[in-house]
This record gives sequence, C-alpha cells and structure tokens, in this order.
Amino acid sequence: MSVSYQAALLRPSPISPSVDFERDGVQHGLLRLPYSRDDSAWGSVMIPICVVKNGEGPVALLSGGNHGDEYEGPLALYDLANNLKAEEVTGTVIIVPAMNFPAFQHGTRTSPVDFGNMNRLFPGKPDGTVTEKIADYFQRHLLPMADIVLDFHSGGRTLDFLPFCAAHVLDDKDLEARAFAAVEAFGAPYSARMLEIDAVGMYDTAAEELGKVFVTTELGGGGSARASTVRIARAGVVNVLRHAGILSSELVRRPTRWLDMPSVDCFSFAEDGGLYETMVDLGERVEKGDVIARVHGYNRTGRAPQELRAKLSGILAARHYPGLIKPGDCASVVAVLTD
Amino acid sequence: MSVSYQAALLRPSPISPSVDFERDGVQHGLLRLPYSRDDSAWGSVMIPICVVKNGEGPVALLSGGNHGDEYEGPLALYDLANNLKAEEVTGTVIIVPAMNFPAFQHGTRTSPVDFGNMNRLFPGKPDGTVTEKIADYFQRHLLPMADIVLDFHSGGRTLDFLPFCAAHVLDDKDLEARAFAAVEAFGAPYSARMLEIDAVGMYDTAAEELGKVFVTTELGGGGSARASTVRIARAGVVNVLRHAGILSSELVRRPTRWLDMPSVDCFSFAEDGGLYETMVDLGERVEKGDVIARVHGYNRTGRAPQELRAKLSGILAARHYPGLIKPGDCASVVAVLTD
Amino acid sequence: MSVSYQAALLRPSPISPSVDFERDGVQHGLLRLPYSRDDSAWGSVMIPICVVKNGEGPVALLSGGNHGDEYEGPLALYDLANNLKAEEVTGTVIIVPAMNFPAFQHGTRTSPVDFGNMNRLFPGKPDGTVTEKIADYFQRHLLPMADIVLDFHSGGRTLDFLPFCAAHVLDDKDLEARAFAAVEAFGAPYSARMLEIDAVGMYDTAAEELGKVFVTTELGGGGSARASTVRIARAGVVNVLRHAGILSSELVRRPTRWLDMPSVDCFSFAEDGGLYETMVDLGERVEKGDVIARVHGYNRTGRAPQELRAKLSGILAARHYPGLIKPGDCASVVAVLTD
Amino acid sequence: MSVSYQAALLRPSPISPSVDFERDGVQHGLLRLPYSRDDSAWGSVMIPICVVKNGEGPVALLSGGNHGDEYEGPLALYDLANNLKAEEVTGTVIIVPAMNFPAFQHGTRTSPVDFGNMNRLFPGKPDGTVTEKIADYFQRHLLPMADIVLDFHSGGRTLDFLPFCAAHVLDDKDLEARAFAAVEAFGAPYSARMLEIDAVGMYDTAAEELGKVFVTTELGGGGSARASTVRIARAGVVNVLRHAGILSSELVRRPTRWLDMPSVDCFSFAEDGGLYETMVDLGERVEKGDVIARVHGYNRTGRAPQELRAKLSGILAARHYPGLIKPGDCASVVAVLTD
Amino acid sequence: MSVSYQAALLRPSPISPSVDFERDGVQHGLLRLPYSRDDSAWGSVMIPICVVKNGEGPVALLSGGNHGDEYEGPLALYDLANNLKAEEVTGTVIIVPAMNFPAFQHGTRTSPVDFGNMNRLFPGKPDGTVTEKIADYFQRHLLPMADIVLDFHSGGRTLDFLPFCAAHVLDDKDLEARAFAAVEAFGAPYSARMLEIDAVGMYDTAAEELGKVFVTTELGGGGSARASTVRIARAGVVNVLRHAGILSSELVRRPTRWLDMPSVDCFSFAEDGGLYETMVDLGERVEKGDVIARVHGYNRTGRAPQELRAKLSGILAARHYPGLIKPGDCASVVAVLTD
Amino acid sequence: MSVSYQAALLRPSPISPSVDFERDGVQHGLLRLPYSRDDSAWGSVMIPICVVKNGEGPVALLSGGNHGDEYEGPLALYDLANNLKAEEVTGTVIIVPAMNFPAFQHGTRTSPVDFGNMNRLFPGKPDGTVTEKIADYFQRHLLPMADIVLDFHSGGRTLDFLPFCAAHVLDDKDLEARAFAAVEAFGAPYSARMLEIDAVGMYDTAAEELGKVFVTTELGGGGSARASTVRIARAGVVNVLRHAGILSSELVRRPTRWLDMPSVDCFSFAEDGGLYETMVDLGERVEKGDVIARVHGYNRTGRAPQELRAKLSGILAARHYPGLIKPGDCASVVAVLTD
Repeated sequence: MSVSYQAALLRPSPISPSVDFERDGVQHGLLRLPYSRDDSAWGSVMIPICVVKNGEGPVALLSGGNHGDEYEGPLALYDLANNLKAEEVTGTVIIVPAMNFPAFQHGTRTSPVDFGNMNRLFPGKPDGTVTEKIADYFQRHLLPMADIVLDFHSGGRTLDFLPFCAAHVLDDKDLEARAFAAVEAFGAPYSARMLEIDAVGMYDTAAEELGKVFVTTELGGGGSARASTVRIARAGVVNVLRHAGILSSELVRRPTRWLDMPSVDCFSFAEDGGLYETMVDLGERVEKGDVIARVHGYNRTGRAPQELRAKLSGILAARHYPGLIKPGDCASVVAVLTD
Repeated sequence: MSVSYQAALLRPSPISPSVDFERDGVQHGLLRLPYSRDDSAWGSVMIPICVVKNGEGPVALLSGGNHGDEYEGPLALYDLANNLKAEEVTGTVIIVPAMNFPAFQHGTRTSPVDFGNMNRLFPGKPDGTVTEKIADYFQRHLLPMADIVLDFHSGGRTLDFLPFCAAHVLDDKDLEARAFAAVEAFGAPYSARMLEIDAVGMYDTAAEELGKVFVTTELGGGGSARASTVRIARAGVVNVLRHAGILSSELVRRPTRWLDMPSVDCFSFAEDGGLYETMVDLGERVEKGDVIARVHGYNRTGRAPQELRAKLSGILAARHYPGLIKPGDCASVVAVLTD
Repeated sequence: MSVSYQAALLRPSPISPSVDFERDGVQHGLLRLPYSRDDSAWGSVMIPICVVKNGEGPVALLSGGNHGDEYEGPLALYDLANNLKAEEVTGTVIIVPAMNFPAFQHGTRTSPVDFGNMNRLFPGKPDGTVTEKIADYFQRHLLPMADIVLDFHSGGRTLDFLPFCAAHVLDDKDLEARAFAAVEAFGAPYSARMLEIDAVGMYDTAAEELGKVFVTTELGGGGSARASTVRIARAGVVNVLRHAGILSSELVRRPTRWLDMPSVDCFSFAEDGGLYETMVDLGERVEKGDVIARVHGYNRTGRAPQELRAKLSGILAARHYPGLIKPGDCASVVAVLTD
Repeated sequence: MSVSYQAALLRPSPISPSVDFERDGVQHGLLRLPYSRDDSAWGSVMIPICVVKNGEGPVALLSGGNHGDEYEGPLALYDLANNLKAEEVTGTVIIVPAMNFPAFQHGTRTSPVDFGNMNRLFPGKPDGTVTEKIADYFQRHLLPMADIVLDFHSGGRTLDFLPFCAAHVLDDKDLEARAFAAVEAFGAPYSARMLEIDAVGMYDTAAEELGKVFVTTELGGGGSARASTVRIARAGVVNVLRHAGILSSELVRRPTRWLDMPSVDCFSFAEDGGLYETMVDLGERVEKGDVIARVHGYNRTGRAPQELRAKLSGILAARHYPGLIKPGDCASVVAVLTD
Repeated sequence: MSVSYQAALLRPSPISPSVDFERDGVQHGLLRLPYSRDDSAWGSVMIPICVVKNGEGPVALLSGGNHGDEYEGPLALYDLANNLKAEEVTGTVIIVPAMNFPAFQHGTRTSPVDFGNMNRLFPGKPDGTVTEKIADYFQRHLLPMADIVLDFHSGGRTLDFLPFCAAHVLDDKDLEARAFAAVEAFGAPYSARMLEIDAVGMYDTAAEELGKVFVTTELGGGGSARASTVRIARAGVVNVLRHAGILSSELVRRPTRWLDMPSVDCFSFAEDGGLYETMVDLGERVEKGDVIARVHGYNRTGRAPQELRAKLSGILAARHYPGLIKPGDCASVVAVLTD
Repeated sequence: MSVSYQAALLRPSPISPSVDFERDGVQHGLLRLPYSRDDSAWGSVMIPICVVKNGEGPVALLSGGNHGDEYEGPLALYDLANNLKAEEVTGTVIIVPAMNFPAFQHGTRTSPVDFGNMNRLFPGKPDGTVTEKIADYFQRHLLPMADIVLDFHSGGRTLDFLPFCAAHVLDDKDLEARAFAAVEAFGAPYSARMLEIDAVGMYDTAAEELGKVFVTTELGGGGSARASTVRIARAGVVNVLRHAGILSSELVRRPTRWLDMPSVDCFSFAEDGGLYETMVDLGERVEKGDVIARVHGYNRTGRAPQELRAKLSGILAARHYPGLIKPGDCASVVAVLTD
C-alpha cells in the first residue's frame, strides 16, 4: 500500500447516499458527490443507485457504465431496478447502472470532467478527481458490503466483441472456482477465462483482493446495443441472482462456448492509419496467415492496402469498430475455442 | 433556376483534375480545390479520383463518401480502383470513393470545414463553400459525362439500416424503369422504391434531372462496416457495371426482397432524450402496436421509460444507432415487405 | 421584397406541428423541425408549443426565448401554459415559451447550431438555417393567426435592464395607439416608447408590418431572473390577455413610469477593455457629466481607470452586466423619465 | 504534514516579485511566475501586487480574485491601491486584487490554465500547477508577513448572496474573537459565523493555522457587481484597516445583522435539471415548507415543475444564479437571523 | 453587378467613424461597428483609424492587417500614425493599420468571428458578416476618397516570401503605369508584376475598378516580422507618400530586382502530408529539376521522402512555412528574375 | 529520490519496442505504448525508432522532437536514419527523431494528450501520463545503453534563436570537458556554455546524472526550419558521430563563436501585451540602453509603445517569435560573445 493511499484513508468519502443500505424494501436514490466548477460553484455529481433489500441474505453489487459508452449493462440494470420487487429477493441487490455517471451522460469511455478511466483508478482517492472519488466510494463503502459483484462491459464506441461473460484466473483457486460457476450461470453465448497481465487499478482486482466473487462481461459494442445482446444481459443478471440465492426462481441454463486468448499473438495492431476493413465478421473462423483486416491509405487510389494477418487460428472475437483507424489501434482479436 | 444559380454559371469551377477523362487506361489522380484558410494560406482540398477507360462505350460514375461516415461504398470503391484493369472495361468507369473528402477524412456526415451536407447542396456553387464547390464540379463536369450513376450510402454513425439498394419513383417512367433494373442487378438482400418528399439539393435529383440512371444504397451503418456488408457492396458494383455493359463478365443474380416505406407512420421519433433501447433488431418482424423502442430517463432509477410503438406492421428497416438519444431523433423505421 | 425571399415563398415550411390550431381545448405539443447533423442524421429540433382555444375570439400569440438567455418570459409562459384552462378563455392563446429553442437549451442569446440571432432574421427562410426556418414558421404560420403579439425580452447574460414593457413608435398611428394601450395594460414598473433606427430583421417589425398589435418587454437581465421580475411578467401577461378580451377577469392596473431614450447620447461605450464598474445602480438618478461607469485596466495596479460620463441627465436604465468588459461594449444607458 | 508536502518545502518558489516588501512608500509591482506553454515557451504569469508601507506597524494582506469571477473585492482593491498614500499608513498594506490572476482574466471561478480552484489547493506546491505555485507563494511568503488577512469573495457567476462579512468558528477562541471583531468592524449589512465542515485546502485554513486574523466576505454574485455592493466592499476594507490600526481615521460603524446556517437543511439541491425559478428573492422571509424554488422541465409545456421546499424557516441567504440549473446544483440556501 | 449587391446598396453602412475626414490635423479615432453576440448583446468591433489632413491635396489610403497574421504593415503604420505631423502633409493620409481588426487581434489570417478572408469578400455587404461590413465600408466610404492605395501583405503564419512590392497588370495601361511607378518608388529589394487569374473579391480589384492607383506588398511572413523587413515597410510607405506628393521630403531611391511568376509551373504542391523540408532558402538559385522541397512521412523511419522538383529555373520566391505540411499545401514557389 | 519515484521503480515500463537493441544491422521499428482513450479503447502511441548497430563500440543516442514544434533535429535524424548504413558504423546509433511523438504530430511544444512538457518530466513514471511513460522509458531503458547523447532543440513556434550547440557547466569537470569537446566537434556557427538554475525534470540532467556525455542545440525556431539550419544539424550530427568514434570518416571542423548569457539581465519581458516589434535581428550588435524591442498597444493609434531596453551589451541571441506578445512573455535575449 503506497504512502499516498495510506494518507487518503484518513479522509472520509465526500459522497453522501440518499439510500439507507440497512432498510428493507425498494429504494431509488442518489449518491451525491459535491463538485465545484466554473459552471456551478456549489454543484454535485448525482449517481443513481437502487437498493432492493429483503432481510438477511447474500448481497449482490451490480454495475454498468464503468465505461460510459457501453450500453448492455445500463439497459439491463435500469430495467431490473424498475422491475425488481423486494419480496422476490432474499438478501440485498445494490444496483448502480452507471458507475462513471459523468462519462455515461457524455456517452464516452472516460469522464469528460477529468478524463478518468474508472477501471484504471481503483482504489480511488477521497480527495482526488471526480472519477477517483467515485472509485473510492466503491472501494470503501460498496464493495465491502457485497458477496458477489457483476460488472457489465461491452466494447464501447471503438471496439466490438462477441458476447461473452468472463472471470479471471486467480491465485485463490476457491474464489476462482466460485467466479467461474457464476460465469456459467450467467449463460452468455460465449464465456472466457481471462488472465490479466496488468491488473493494476482495475475494479475487478479491487473486488477480488477483497475476496469477492467477481464476474464481468463483454457484450457487443460500437457504442450501441442490439436487442439480442440486451436480452443476453437481462437474462444473465437474473441468472446470476438466482445462482447467488438472491432470487428463488429457477436458473435457466443456456449453452455457452469457452474462449481463450492465449498470447499476445491474438492481437493485431495497425501501423499506419487509414480506412479500416475487417475481412471477417465476429465469430467467423480464421486460419493462421489469413488476412483478417486491411488498412487503406485514402489520400489516393491505386495504393496497396496494409494487410494484417492472423498469427494463430481461431475465431474473430473482437475488432476495431469505427470506419477509420489510427496508428497503434488494435484492429483484430483472434480467440481460440477451448471446448 | 434561381437568379443566384444563373450568376454562378458564369464562373468556372476552381477545381482542377490531374486526370484526363479522354485518355485510355487506368489513371489514379486528384481533384485539386484551392482552399485558403488560417492553417494554410495557399492550401487545397485534394479529392482522389480514378478513371478507367477503354475506348468508346457507356460511362459509369461511382461514388462513396457523399456522407463522410458511411464506409461500405468507399471500401468497395478503393478496392475496385486498385483492381480494375482497363482491358476489362468497355467505355469508362469514373470512381470517386470519397466525394465529400474533408468529411470522409474527419469521419463525419458533414464537412468539418463548412458543416456542409453534400447531399443537400446540389447543384452547388463555384464560388460557395468547399462542399458547394465540390457539388458544382459533380454537377457541371462529372454528371454530364455519365450514363449511369451509383452513389453508395449507409446509415453513418447515427443510424443503422438493413442492407438495400434503391432508386426513386420518377415522373419519367422510362428512366425509372432503367433505374430499377439497375437496382435489381445490384442484387442487395433488400431493394427499395423511394418516394422523396423533399428532394431539393440532393445529388440524386441532380443526376435524375440530367436524365441519368441513378442508383443508391443503404448498407448497414453505425459508422463502421461489416465484412458481410462490404461483400454486398463489392458484388453490387461489379453487377451494376456488368448490367451497364461496361464489364463483360456474367451478372451474378442474387435474390432480393422489396421494401416499401409507405407513409410517415413508418418513422418514430423520441420526444425526450435518454438511454435508447431498441426492442427489436433489424429485419425482425414488428406488429402494429408493439413497443419497438424505449427511452430511459437515466437521472434516477425507478422511472418508467417512454415507449415508442409501431404505427404499422412490417419489419424493422432502420434504427437510431448510438446508445443515447436526443429529443427529436428518429428512433425506429418500420418498412413493409412488398414481395 | 427581395428576389430570394420571393423564391423562398415557393417552398413550404419544413416544420410540422403536433397541435391542431382549430381544435378547442388545451393542447401541449411540439413544432418538429427536421435537422440532419453529424450527431443525428435524422434528428429534429422540437419546439414546445401550447394552444388553448375556446371557440371564436381574439388570438394572442405569446412568446419568450427569442433570445435564449432571457428568462422572465419563459418562466411566465411555462407557468401560464400549465395553468390556463380552456374554459377561462374566449378565443385562442398560442404560447411558445422558448422560440429559439436551441438557444434556450444552451442558455445563450443566439443559437449554438447556427449562431442565429432570431430577432435579426425575420422573415426567415424555409430552406435556410435552423433559426431562419423557425422565423419563417412564425412569419408565415403563427403571426397571420394572431391579433395581438406579446414577445418577452430581458437583458440576457450581458445586459441588465430596469423592468419595462414597450411598444414602437409606428407610422400607423392607430396600430401604435392600440399597442401602447396594451403596454399600459401590462403594467410594468416602467414603460417605454421605442423608436427603432434599424428595424430590419426584427420579429417586432414582421408583426407590425402584418398589422398586428405588438408588445415587448425588457425585464431585468444578467442571464437570470428574480422572483420580483417574474411576478411582473406573470401579472403582465394575464393583464394583456384581459385587455385583449381573452380572459374575462378584471384587469389589475398598476402604476408605471414612462421612459424615453431620446438620442444616441443615452449610450456609453467602453473604448478599452478591463474590469467594469458601474458607479450607479439601475433606477438611480444621474446628472449630465457624472461618472457613470469606470473601466479598470487590471494588468497593474496604480493606473487610472477610464471614466465614462453621462452625456445627459436621467436615470440609469440599463448597464453592461458581466464583471469584465471588452472594447466596444455598451457600458451604460441613461433614460429620461417623461411623466 | 504529508510526505509530498515535506519534499516540496525543499524547493524555492519560482515566483519573483518586482516589489521590495521592506521598502517604504507605494510600490505597484508584479509577481512573475514563469509558465512555459505551447503559445509561449518562455512565458510568465504576471500577478499585480501593490505594497504600501510606512515604517513599522501591523501588516494587512488584502486579496480579491481568489475565485476569478467575483468582482466586489477586485473593484475595491484596485481602487484602494490607486488611492492609498504611504503617509496615511502605519505599518504595511499588501494588496493582491486578483490572486488567481489567470482565472480573473478569464472571468471564471477556476484557472483556465489548470482548472485549479485556488481555495482548495492550499498550501500549494512550488513544483505543481500554476494555481498551486501561486498558493505556495501566499503560504510561504505573503501569509507569514501578515497580521490580519482580508480575502474578498462573492457568489461568482453561478451563485448570488446577501452581502455579508464572515469569520470562522475556531478552536483558538482568542483568534476567533479577534476575527469576529474585525468582521464587526467591516460593517457589512449582514455578518456570518461560519463552521467549515471540510476546510482542507482553503486559504482561510492556511491563514488561521498560521495564527493570522482571517476575515472573508460574500458580497452579491452573478458574475457582476452592483454599485451598492462595491460601496460595501470599499467601506469595509477601510474600516478593517482602521480597526487594525493601520489607518488612523475613525472607524465608521454600520449596523449589521448576524446570520447562521445551522445545518445541512439550509441547502436545497436540484435533482433534475431545467429552467430554474426562485420563488423568493434574497433577504425575503421563508417559512419551513414554503416552495422556495422550482425547476421546470422545458421539453414540453404541461408538465408540473419540481418544487423545492424550505426545510427550516429564515431568510433566503443565497441562490443559484443562472436561468438554467443542472442536476445536483444547489438551488437555494436559507439562513437564520440570530440577532 | 448582382441582384443582391444592388439591394445591399440601399442600406447604409452600420459603421460610424469617430473621425471627421474633412477636418485638418491629426485624428486618432475608431470605426465602430455594432456586433451583437452571445458575450455582448450590445457589443461593437472598434477598428482604429488615423487621419492626418492638411488642406487640399492628394489622398492616400494606407492599410495593413487585411490578413490578420501579417505584421510588417501594421508595424509600419502604427508607427507612421504615431509620428506623422499634419504640417508635413499636403492633402490627406488615412491610415487603417489593421483592416480586419478581429483577425488581427486573434493573430489569424481570417476573422475568428465569421472566418471571413477580407481579401475575398469585396465589395462586402452592409448587412452581411462582420468582415463583409468592414469591406463594404472600405468600398463605399474609404476607397472613393482615395487617390492612391497602399495595402500591406506578408506571408502570414503559413507562408514566407522574399520581400517585394507589387502591382497588377491591368487593362487600363495608364493606371497600370502609375501603379508600377509607385512600386518603383516604394523601393523594396524585389518588385513584382502580378497577373491575377481569379481577382474576384479582392480589395485590389475593388480599388482598381474605381480607378485608384493600387500598390501592395509581400514582405516576409511566418506570422512574425524581422527588424529588416519592418525597415523596408517603413521606408517604403514614406517613399510612396513622397511619390504621391503628400510628403515633400526627397524620395530615397533603392535598387530593386523585378520578379515574374510566369505560369502555374512556379507552384509545387504537397500530395501527402508530413514533415516539411525546404531544400533551398528564399532567394537561393534553383535549376529546373532540382529537388526544392521534401515531405517526410514520419510514422516510421526508413521510408523515402516525397521529393518535389522545380518545374522551371529561377529563385525561391516563397515557401510553406510551418514544419508540418498537409496534402494540397503549396510547398514552394519559384520566380524568374526579369531584370 | 522521492518516495513516489521509488514506488514507480517497481513497475515495468508499458512500452514494448519492436527493435532488438542487441541485433546488428539497420532496424526501423516502433516503441509501442498502450494508450486507452475515448477514441480508441485499445489504442497505442507508436514512436518511431531506428537502431543501426555494427558490433561492439560506443553507443550514441540521438533525439529530436523533445519539444514537438522544433524541426531541425527531426529533419536531420529522419534523414540520417534513412541513409546510415550498418557497415559505416562501429558500435551503435539509436535514433529517436521525435521523442514526444504526440506533440510532434500535433506540431506543438507539449503533448496534446496530457500537455506534458517532456523536458520537465524526467525521470518520468511508468504509471503516469503518456509523456511521463515515454520519459521513463528513456530514463530506464535508452539512457543506460548510451555513451553519448545528442538532443536537438530549436526555438519552436514562439522563440527564434541564433544557431548554437551547447553543453552544461557541470560539477563533474571531466564529464563537462568531454561534453564541450563534443560541442566543439558539432561545429555550429555559435556554441554556448549553459548554467541551468532550475534543472529539475530535464532530460539533460537525467543523462548527466547517469554520467553520459550530453550535448544539445538551439537551431533557429519559429516553428519551421530553414535549409541553412538543417544543413547545420545534418553536418553536426555526423561530426558528433565521428568525434565519438562511431563513424570513421574525418571530422569536418567549422569555426564557431562562443556565447555566454551571464545573468538574468540578458532577458527582457513584456509587461503589457500587444503588437511585438524586434528592433534588431538575431546576431545584430546591441549596446546597453538600446531599445531592443517595442510593444504597441493596438486598440488605438497615437499611443506610445512600450520600449524594452538592453540591460547589457552584446548580440541578440534569441527573440520572441509571433507578431503578437502577451504580458510576461520573454521578448528578447542578449548574449555576450566570449571569444
């Protein structure tokens, strides 16, 4: 633990919730974070939160909008918050459909206020930026209450993913096993085992270090949501709550295929920028050596495009989304089916 | 013809092409448009153009990037320009893969230079904005050379479409019939008969008023392109050149389904802004009265979303794309299958 | 009438109202103006409108938000729209609380979309900018229906005014007399006779040229509203409706003092920019030769400020509002009391 | 004291003053802070400072522009600097009329250079941002010289206040008593006892921790100044200098009313954004349960506004200023009169 | 003359000068142009003007800042205005050192207010943009008074020129001869005969069409001025006034070399963008076929730069200035020495 | 070494090079730095690097673009990278022609990504901003490999310098002597001994503290490069490689004059902003008391300009570049010739 984090622990969070986490019933409230700025000297960021509690029992913490341009999670969670009844629940469901609320309102990955990427700023700081203050509140107030944590992600405006649910390979094999059981329960079309090389600052890591069962997703992308991917999200979250024993209705099992991204060879990067062309669509089969993407210089016709070739065989699991690509952007991700 | 358009006719276009439209062979060139501005007193806009000519014969004018964030057309046309050989051709193929080149470079519908929407600025002006000068060059130099015109569109960053090729219902029924024959030849999964209510300023209208066979498309959207929709574009343009007698290889017929958007009831608009949810995906069946989209106010949980309901039965032909929606945005378009 | 305006008349307005101006009762609707742009290819501007009609009778057209940063009018008119009952009315009340709706949403004098100053763009154009299209709809659709027109103004973010209601000195003395009678009925603390030197493009002029009784106001400013000035606006609009015979309740007369701004000597302009100081407050007595405002150069202390002196005696009727002033800004306006 | 602050102490301030604090007489100078940036590789921030010294005696440090959009302080202090004569003074008066000079030039609360809110960045850092470097100079160079510190505030562009002078409730009751005596001497129409809950980073706290008598104000707001509030500021600063024994002229006592803001119930926050309406003006009486402000959703007429009700009885002491309000903004502050 | 220009003639200019063009002596004044905008509802553009008159005699109109980032002219003219004495003059000298004053303040070629390039907007419009209104005032008020017009230009931020004075080849050979005599009198190191291909909208053309002797310059560039080029400008303007008979002191002849730019082959344009390298400096000798500039793609090392070669022999007369270049920018201009 | 720097050492650099520093031959590669952002969730910064190695021997590290708007270094280094052959080399040449690559692409001194001034951020941080991550890679990976370091600077967009090569006065007199020998070998027209007062954060200091021979330059400026200054840079870098024993060709000695800037009196700063005029050109002789620059207030003619006078005699070594100047900008630098 760093010196500056220790010092930070001495200050309370500036966030005040309008909900009472001890109270039974359905509460729709706000996390109010004072935020003084040029256009509002005494302004605040107001983050919606819903708490559904019915006596003692497990606590699930459900979140979307960790990145502000990923929509399946928020769509499933606003809907769940509007429809979940206290009497259906045993224990507590805490729903924050748009964690990085300023980013979510702005439709961007990071916060327009401080350019904070929420998922790289854990454990946060009570006297840091707006994004760090929100992370700190999750770190010190919400995560400690939870038994199971489900954090929805999608590709956002610049990536598109096959729909999958995932958990991390962990040193704590018991915790890992419980996480993968929850992934299986979620029941997305694809499921993934993820090995983070650089996990510093992630919400995932923060939760796992506190011993929480942590499950995440990547469900589509492109800065939009399809009806079909929202249906996956809605079914998945209900299944996870059933699996956790919070909802008593029967878990609806759906088949899933397991993906692995075994090495850095899964990823292809553009070296020059230009007009981006994926040569295969998500889920299509790719053989090692195939051209999987091309980048066309567009200042003139008659110039050969750059060709990016698959460095291993598998299926296209993710791709750059926008029609133009910049040098250094990840163009394509090939994954291996392991089942 | 308006007074100001008459006056404009007196001035030559400021655009100078580096290609010779009379020369046989393949030429990759530029349309140079002088453009003085703060960051370049003697700057120019340089629009790529490719001319493939082989003796006398019909002339096809092929364009993409009329709107700068629509990618199937540019991808098919840069590829065609790189691969078409003069000896394959009878007549002339003129390819402008990115008409509104400043918009295309910027990845936006309209030009970052003057916010010009190319498809609302025809016939253009030689002494107008950059976008108007480009339109004028098409109006007075390129369109008059053409027999058949194919202008690629897609939904762009803010809309997503079922892939279709289309032509307009015209007063000149002979011209209309020739246009629909070209649509049929294109062979997209869907084809559409379009009745423009407000056709003022469109490239389509400019071409049709000059008696040209004019064919257009909507192929996907969202500010990206899929491998599958690019394949449709690539196959379609080759089929159109075969149909026009410019390529001698055999036309590959593919089945198409005909769409109609009979009235304003096809379109649903959001009244409040918020988190957008399509309840059906493109091509899915919709019954009159179904909730086809919802808009969730996101400042709080626990508020009922607005529901937009289908005003007629059909299939979902187009939808708002980004995850957030603003008041007045078109949320959903329902079309009727007529075959 | 100019050539381009004649041509414009040939095109219908692109605006479609969701209200029926012929229907009795209270309708809360929208004027939908299609507006294609980078962030919404099929977007619209949606301008709120309320129509309260009860049989035949006079028609009042009430508007605020002609400039988007002036608030007394919108506050009085949203309130009136929420509370007016059809049975209280004889004839019709058409309420557009925020004419230049994009400017109003943005909190600025002019439209963020096209920088259009609504009050300089009449008669508008159906194929012009967004602001011109709104002006054209008022010119060709709303004004012709009206007998009496009340358009609320205040000082906006950069000026502050004594609260007054006003009408113009007109060639048509009968129309002028009817307008001043309505001003008297409004009953603001101050009333003004205005002689426009350059009336081209004003909504006022457009209404007057159609023979409508036109009344306007300046009620405070600074980009905000006080409870006291909103009370003036609310009472004034009700009085005008009573005066017009649309509301049958008794007109509540309030004393008003008449102002005149007889010449260009009423206005003082800053020559250098700096820190602005008004030496007198609105309504305070000023003698010719008094220092009424100072501009302090702030790069150093110890420099004498510029002094602006009154060129005639009267009261301070308006002043520059923000704490900093730029060269050429109007610093102070002195008016003469004529009663 | 944190580790990083200790390290910072090792570096000298980069600011060099052009005045000599030991020299008798009137000096108008600059604090020069080197600031390398894209538009000036060897640029500087130049902060005006005036020193008026006449032998030994108490030292007053007077400042405005801690927030850049608050004008009564700068107006009183540029004026004082221009008019104060060395022979009138016993001791020293140090005047910095615009502390956060980049913010002041820009007319904004925070610095356009680094978005620094000066009053949250004490004790500053000599190797931090521009705002932190200025704070550090006050912390380590100016504050240690002073006996009494007067820092002018107003509401700025987004708040409006009743005019009051204030000091903090302190643990050091002797220091507190001396501060309140100075408040009494200032003689604003209202005076306030303030209990800071979160005083970290404030200039106030920095001064008080060094044992200085610290007095502050809130005098109007809205991003402008009235002649009447500037008169209060001018009279107040002279009174404070008399009270401190620096000016020998007689203190002019003026009646003041004492305000208290006893709890968080004084503050009301908007939950949704919209058109803001204060229902009472500053200084008007409010009863618990009264509607003190309303927020009108403006996308349509006919929707009931949100109503914010007073949670205690008192007078309106402060309010949101601009005509539009965002979720989370403080709408109204009710204070209790304690005399 | 177009229809819209005729209509425009009916309206007076909105500009009011604070100087009296009929009065003898030195007057330092302002042209005030009302300009309502979001940050100043009743704001103005204030353009400095100096008039030095002494009885009857020729009238010289001297201007700089036609483009806002060209500095030799403004430097020479502010200096001349500060130093010219009425008694030295026979006739009148009208000095406008910064014609496009908003552009000049902003340090850009075009106006930040409307992006107007002053030298393409003549004859201007009294009801157009700010830049058009200024042009109209020159067209209808200042030019008609003048006998001789000197308009200073330099290369601005994006071009650098050899220092030359120039006039146009005209149909009116007498006027042309008088203009070249004035060029000779100016005495720059280089002089040029210019043949405008597209003279529409230029101030030059406006003056020449009114039969005025019109002289212009290009003196350096790069958005700065050297002491040596300012000395040329200062000496040149005095010589022109002597030549015109307005100053009686003796004309100081300096040798000049005559340049010609005979064809479009003088100009080289970049096709791709990148890191720009001039291979020769201004005034250096160039042989046809020499590499005169290179453009380095900078995304990688090891790629051959584009080479631009001279299409004729001569000297380098102008060059692109900034270190980076965009596609379509003019890279180099070769001129031929004709003496 | 600070606490936070110690902690940082525990993390590896996120940068991965595509070159192998141990491999003989010429390699053109990239330093890939992952950079997640709104417009590319999985984006990277790709910094070009060239390694030319031929067996054992000394290692030179050559860099340009430490500030992104300084061009002589990048021009010389891209050229060197394109032309240097492995067989010419003994040892290794590492070339990074654009260190702060985002700044270089953007044409600005600092990075558009984080406003980082590379030369103030050493030793960098592996988990800091993009600029800090690049600095850290130089600090921990590139500098340790080097024997001699040459870092090119010029004046950038806002300063212009006489062309000189320089090294620092150091406590380690042996290292200092070796550095000045390399400066002498470089052979610029001028050479300078520099005494840094505030060397914290500089690349220079980082290299020197590791015991490396460090040489730098200032070669012109203004955001451009002349052919003559690029020739100096190209000849200088080759000479330095010869001097270091890496190239075996004969060192070409050129005469140089030695400059000294002995005190703060060398620098003159503008106090007010305005139109900037240098009264002398670079290299011209200046006597103490001469007016070396003037600043003209431009809001009116007829006001005396500020005059800046030389505080010592010497030659003009550097000057403000743009035509406008702001308060606090360095206007002129006078240096003393010491040989």
